[in-house]
Amino acid sequence: MEVLYVSIACGLLAVVYGVVTRARILSASAGSEKMQEIAGAIQEGAQAYLNRQYKTIAVVGVVVAVALFVALGMYPAIGFVIGAVLSGVAGYIGMLISVKANVRTTEAARTSLQAGLTIAFQSGAVTGMLVAGLALLAVAGYYTVLIGHLGFASSDRTVIDALVALGFGASLISIFARLGGGIFTKGADVGADLVGKVEAGIPEDDPRNPAVIADNVGDNVGDCAGMAADLFETYVVTIGATMVLTALFVANGAGDIMQLPLIIGGVCIIASIIGTFAVRLGSNNSIMGALYKGFILTAVLSAGAMYFAMQWALGDMATVYTAGSSSITGMSLYICGIVGLVVTGLIIWLTEYYTSTEFRPVRSIAKASETGHGTNVIQGLAISMEATALPTIVICAGIIVAYSTAGVLGLGFAATAMLALAGMVVALDAYGPVTDNAGGIAEMAGLDDEVRGRTDALDAVGNTTKAVTKGYAIGSAALAALVLFGAYTADLNIYFPDVDVNFELSNPYVVVGLLLGALLPYLFGALGMTAVGRAGGEVVEEVRAQFKADPGIMAGTSKPDYARSVDMLTKTAIKEMVVPSLLPVAAPIVTYFIINAIAGQGQAFAAVGALLLGVIVGGLFVALSMTAGGGAWDNAKKYIEDGNHGGKGSEAHKAAVTGDTVGDPYKDTAGPAVNPMIKITNIVALLLLAMLAHS
Amino acid sequence: MEVLYVSIACGLLAVVYGVVTRARILSASAGSEKMQEIAGAIQEGAQAYLNRQYKTIAVVGVVVAVALFVALGMYPAIGFVIGAVLSGVAGYIGMLISVKANVRTTEAARTSLQAGLTIAFQSGAVTGMLVAGLALLAVAGYYTVLIGHLGFASSDRTVIDALVALGFGASLISIFARLGGGIFTKGADVGADLVGKVEAGIPEDDPRNPAVIADNVGDNVGDCAGMAADLFETYVVTIGATMVLTALFVANGAGDIMQLPLIIGGVCIIASIIGTFAVRLGSNNSIMGALYKGFILTAVLSAGAMYFAMQWALGDMATVYTAGSSSITGMSLYICGIVGLVVTGLIIWLTEYYTSTEFRPVRSIAKASETGHGTNVIQGLAISMEATALPTIVICAGIIVAYSTAGVLGLGFAATAMLALAGMVVALDAYGPVTDNAGGIAEMAGLDDEVRGRTDALDAVGNTTKAVTKGYAIGSAALAALVLFGAYTADLNIYFPDVDVNFELSNPYVVVGLLLGALLPYLFGALGMTAVGRAGGEVVEEVRAQFKADPGIMAGTSKPDYARSVDMLTKTAIKEMVVPSLLPVAAPIVTYFIINAIAGQGQAFAAVGALLLGVIVGGLFVALSMTAGGGAWDNAKKYIEDGNHGGKGSEAHKAAVTGDTVGDPYKDTAGPAVNPMIKITNIVALLLLAMLAHS
Repeated sequence: MEVLYVSIACGLLAVVYGVVTRARILSASAGSEKMQEIAGAIQEGAQAYLNRQYKTIAVVGVVVAVALFVALGMYPAIGFVIGAVLSGVAGYIGMLISVKANVRTTEAARTSLQAGLTIAFQSGAVTGMLVAGLALLAVAGYYTVLIGHLGFASSDRTVIDALVALGFGASLISIFARLGGGIFTKGADVGADLVGKVEAGIPEDDPRNPAVIADNVGDNVGDCAGMAADLFETYVVTIGATMVLTALFVANGAGDIMQLPLIIGGVCIIASIIGTFAVRLGSNNSIMGALYKGFILTAVLSAGAMYFAMQWALGDMATVYTAGSSSITGMSLYICGIVGLVVTGLIIWLTEYYTSTEFRPVRSIAKASETGHGTNVIQGLAISMEATALPTIVICAGIIVAYSTAGVLGLGFAATAMLALAGMVVALDAYGPVTDNAGGIAEMAGLDDEVRGRTDALDAVGNTTKAVTKGYAIGSAALAALVLFGAYTADLNIYFPDVDVNFELSNPYVVVGLLLGALLPYLFGALGMTAVGRAGGEVVEEVRAQFKADPGIMAGTSKPDYARSVDMLTKTAIKEMVVPSLLPVAAPIVTYFIINAIAGQGQAFAAVGALLLGVIVGGLFVALSMTAGGGAWDNAKKYIEDGNHGGKGSEAHKAAVTGDTVGDPYKDTAGPAVNPMIKITNIVALLLLAMLAHS
Repeated sequence: MEVLYVSIACGLLAVVYGVVTRARILSASAGSEKMQEIAGAIQEGAQAYLNRQYKTIAVVGVVVAVALFVALGMYPAIGFVIGAVLSGVAGYIGMLISVKANVRTTEAARTSLQAGLTIAFQSGAVTGMLVAGLALLAVAGYYTVLIGHLGFASSDRTVIDALVALGFGASLISIFARLGGGIFTKGADVGADLVGKVEAGIPEDDPRNPAVIADNVGDNVGDCAGMAADLFETYVVTIGATMVLTALFVANGAGDIMQLPLIIGGVCIIASIIGTFAVRLGSNNSIMGALYKGFILTAVLSAGAMYFAMQWALGDMATVYTAGSSSITGMSLYICGIVGLVVTGLIIWLTEYYTSTEFRPVRSIAKASETGHGTNVIQGLAISMEATALPTIVICAGIIVAYSTAGVLGLGFAATAMLALAGMVVALDAYGPVTDNAGGIAEMAGLDDEVRGRTDALDAVGNTTKAVTKGYAIGSAALAALVLFGAYTADLNIYFPDVDVNFELSNPYVVVGLLLGALLPYLFGALGMTAVGRAGGEVVEEVRAQFKADPGIMAGTSKPDYARSVDMLTKTAIKEMVVPSLLPVAAPIVTYFIINAIAGQGQAFAAVGALLLGVIVGGLFVALSMTAGGGAWDNAKKYIEDGNHGGKGSEAHKAAVTGDTVGDPYKDTAGPAVNPMIKITNIVALLLLAMLAHS
């Protein structure tokens, strides 16, 4: 129990860090009255949106919680509620801090780049530590209550079901938050760009544009709150799935091994907190370099701390445990953890290569913009597809090394170590929307170009770090999905020992499952992109209507009705998020019942199992290509705006704006939502097995 | 042997039909001197390109042929040469007829829509029948020589290796032709559009554009010759793989069953020839309706003829044969054939829905063009992703029904029946580039708008039928790949009975293989799109240089140097096609040797096997989305040009031109080349097994 209490203490420490740092940020100056007024409007819109979004999600949540209670009993239902509520809290807090930090970043950027970076990064760090801390508290806390206070054995079915349901709660809420927030933010972004930059010929973030506040609200509810909920989910599911797999697979000492993911998460939070203090500009003023310093320190400290923590938790690193057909030791699991850290580092490095303005990919898109809109988009699509190659090879290498070292449990520990760095990775990401907002506020408040220059420099790096987090999340999802698939097969053996399930590739039902699974991200992506297109179109019409009704808006003599655009988008985004979010919930259930009716239960289980792998095989590429491609398009535009290929206002710039618009729903709506989608499909399949067994 | 001779006779009949119809087309008037001059330039350029392309391919072909001779002996090497040469011949003849028919279609369109349709469709039918006829002759002829004249048993290893090598020859040549032709045609198209329509403000096909002849050459070498080589390959591989699988699986009477794919191909050619005569405009003047009449008559006749042909070949339809673990009869194989016909019909119908100007998808892209380039592309991408859903479900249903009826061999017969309609399907497709050229010639020769209106109407349907063929080819590839995978597992058992290969999804090497396989179409697509972007950029520079050197070109007083653009593109396309084409050849080999070094032969075989399925799981979606999306973008532009959403010259039209440009490499370069890529990967794996076993 000591190990559990230490893990919980680490989680609490993260929360304390968040509260203290938040107070420090709030003590910074919020700038002029005008700046505060703008920030106030953004804050109000963001809160109004999230309130309505979470109310809608709550309805779905209550229905599912009741269903779980009826089907599986009280503890899984409570687990679901914990996961769902804390996922919502993580998102909400992420939004709350970023709407306070944005204007303070603008104000700080008036002094220096370092000052702006400090506020923005600290704000990101608050979100990051709260996401990691709350996620760890959720899993470690509930697990401790179940085995410590309620006296369940660590591999008791109730504990397993409760952990799975906890993950389900987090995933279900996060897909809604990712998608709803993604539709809101990109509907606003696309719509505001089209009607502002293209039609009315006014610059980005011009206060005359009635959708400009909605655009900034979107950064907070999509890129910040949605992302926080997503990474909370990824953390909970990955660590939970590794614990579940341990419970199912490990014959001797499962309880000891089950504590390891929690203590790994705990010590890595401490390493992350230390790492945040290393984020400082060097003499070369490289923002990415400053962020790298923080990440590298975190990773190195984590690698060391993990070893001692595991040794302490297990007593020694050499005792042999039996996990399914593999033999594992503390040392072999530690090596898998190192694999996870290396994979994380490589994915970050590769994503930077594909999305930073420094390298060939982004520059090739910028160059292609010279010959027009079409060639910009073609080159962007080519880069987005190419960007899947090296990360996939890294993930494959990670799978092979981890599996050779410690079997399928090794994959779980590699994924756990990846996610243990979530506090730092989310910090890098969540700083992005804050700087994006800061730039908008600088523009609307009419501050000096120098200030806008600084916020733009911060924002360009933000595009890369945002892509990094998504690549990292989807990469870890590939490993986590294999762990969940392992749990699925183990559960099948336990629940249905008499049903013969053939998972061989030569079984056509396996092929059908793979194809249907790979279809899901495509269909899901299509629905997400269409929703953004529709929401963007509605913004265009709303803005046109406002311009028409009051010519004073364009003249600058009267103020547009910002709230009406926010309100309109709120309704649209919430309406549009429901159907796609339910797709991954329905898919395994529908597949099971249809194949069961055609070919019996054995083939139905085979098809559903293959569907779980199909969704990761298809989803990995859809998500990697969309998130990297979108980031590359955005930065190609920024590269041109920096004065290359003709600079702002040139034909190349117009083409690059088109590419950026296309990349918006790619990178911020459809692409990132694939990650929770993969997990939901897997978890629903596990719950389906449990329900079928109980019925 | 009777059955084989009848099959060969049917193949010869197709060739006779081709020769006779070609003579009839040539007897039509080729129009004015100016029109003939233009057509002459196109013809010259197309021949020059194909000569150079096939010379380059021949070098690769000779190397591979020698390697096969050394590794597997004479008969496989001869099979490879037959497949390679006839694939080239099919492409070459397709080009030769279409460069003669284009100007005659223009001339005929001066009289009436029906007259234009007749010439264009007959030209397509010549290509279609020659593709199907030559493919059938290649397989049936060589098989007859091997078992009839050289006396090999029908399931002798030499026969199997020879059939596999024949397919390899066809595939290897066709991927070069598809990709080289695709890069040429879309480089020309993209480049000519950018520099002509966008920069110089001159209409499509304006004779002042130095790239205009290259654009028309591209239709012939890419959409016609490349497509013909591709479908030749699909036919040969599908029928060959079904025969190979029969040889490996069927215990009693394999020789009888092996004849069935050939006789099915034979009678369906006759049905296709009859079907061509039904292609006539009805009272509603619907071009698609006229083509449907031909297709439906062919399908219905084929369904009937197949039954009687199979009954005749087998003696009766009720005798039970043992194929692996399944029991099959003539009747059950016939039912699978019907499944193939139904799948073909449904895919055609669904593709029409997604790419015709009549329905929601294309219209939604046209509508999205009103709000700009960005929304056009977003909606186009959304539609391209959505368009994968229903065809995938149809294919999955086909797999389940065929497999339940006759096991894995049933999949082979479903695919065989699909391909048996190739004569008709290719006819529908090959008419497209002819009408595209006819429109260009009308424009350049300065004919009446009415003529151009007729050729445009024909061309819009051509966009749909071109998408149909590609959807059909990739759908059949999904089935054929499963057949090839079946052959791979059977070969493993025969060659390496002592190596334990675990194809279960829970084996991480299987997961790694799936991921690497799914990566291939992404990487391949990225290379193809980049190549088009580069080729298009070079065209832009070439044209700019010509405009600059001689201002008389734009003034219309001097003639541009068309040949220089053609020559430049020829070199670029041939240079760019080599590396991507070798990717699917290298992938299984590299995967085998790397995994073999890490984890031993069993896991290496498992990973390669999974790679074969991964490439189809990934490739199906890449290919379906690209080909349907590209067709939809093109027709959305045509829909606007028909006077909707502001018509030609409106802002919506400009946005639609961007979408069309993006769709070009999607639908005509990267997307369709995925089909031969999938087959090559599979065939190389089979040959790898044979080589490893012999060494």
